[in-house]
Amino acid sequence: MQDSDFTLHPQLAKDTVPLGDLPLSRVLLIDDETYPWLLLVPRRRGVSEIVDLGSVERAHLMSEITQVADALKAETECDKLNIAALGNVVPQLHVHIIARFRSDAAWPRPVWGVCPPSRYGEAAREDAVARLRRRIWLAS
Amino acid sequence: MQDSDFTLHPQLAKDTVPLGDLPLSRVLLIDDETYPWLLLVPRRRGVSEIVDLGSVERAHLMSEITQVADALKAETECDKLNIAALGNVVPQLHVHIIARFRSDAAWPRPVWGVCPPSRYGEAAREDAVARLRRRIWLAS
Repeated sequence: MQDSDFTLHPQLAKDTVPLGDLPLSRVLLIDDETYPWLLLVPRRRGVSEIVDLGSVERAHLMSEITQVADALKAETECDKLNIAALGNVVPQLHVHIIARFRSDAAWPRPVWGVCPPSRYGEAAREDAVARLRRRIWLAS
Repeated sequence: MQDSDFTLHPQLAKDTVPLGDLPLSRVLLIDDETYPWLLLVPRRRGVSEIVDLGSVERAHLMSEITQVADALKAETECDKLNIAALGNVVPQLHVHIIARFRSDAAWPRPVWGVCPPSRYGEAAREDAVARLRRRIWLAS
């Protein structure tokens, strides 16, 4: 499932820290400590919509969404998962997987546009990356 | 794939018009003419998260999301699809499939909380239901 032409969109690169690659998707942590927030980006050039993927790739994507969402839920003990493919601003297909809490800054609203992002401190970012990486790749 | 215990959440019933049932999910039109906006509700009692479904059901859900999203895109010729499972307010699992336009009231923001819903007039609602039903079930 390699696609040597794949390049991460610069806006996604700017807003995130890479956790690693699953067979189809790159896994990224959004650098915003307000919410535990991951992205899955299928490594396919020129794909904007889930329906642009082939059926085998869509099955892989659902499997990777489940793997990452289960790991995020286990790690955070969140109240709810929010899973979304929007892409109105950045056209490269990316799936948001967000751990939500009844106590978080946007609850019960969706997270987009509510709070300006608050970047992790260096130690907290390294800790979040290490914990999430362990959870996701242990589960694979 | 029947689940005789399934009951649609009253809030979803109130906000939507039913289009029909696919093998796993009920298909609903949100009664808001601001955006062409469908919901898929897997007919499974007590399920809040995509990860609560079994793997076979998740595969069916991805297939039904694709079928409905393709039909909505073909019918509306939209600029972008927004697909999301949030559920912070209504706990019954429901997947939003929304046709977005660069000219719509919320673009490029997500639709939630931007405009109060504006219900269809009776003729426009019947027309939208008929057109979408034809597209979705022709494609199946």
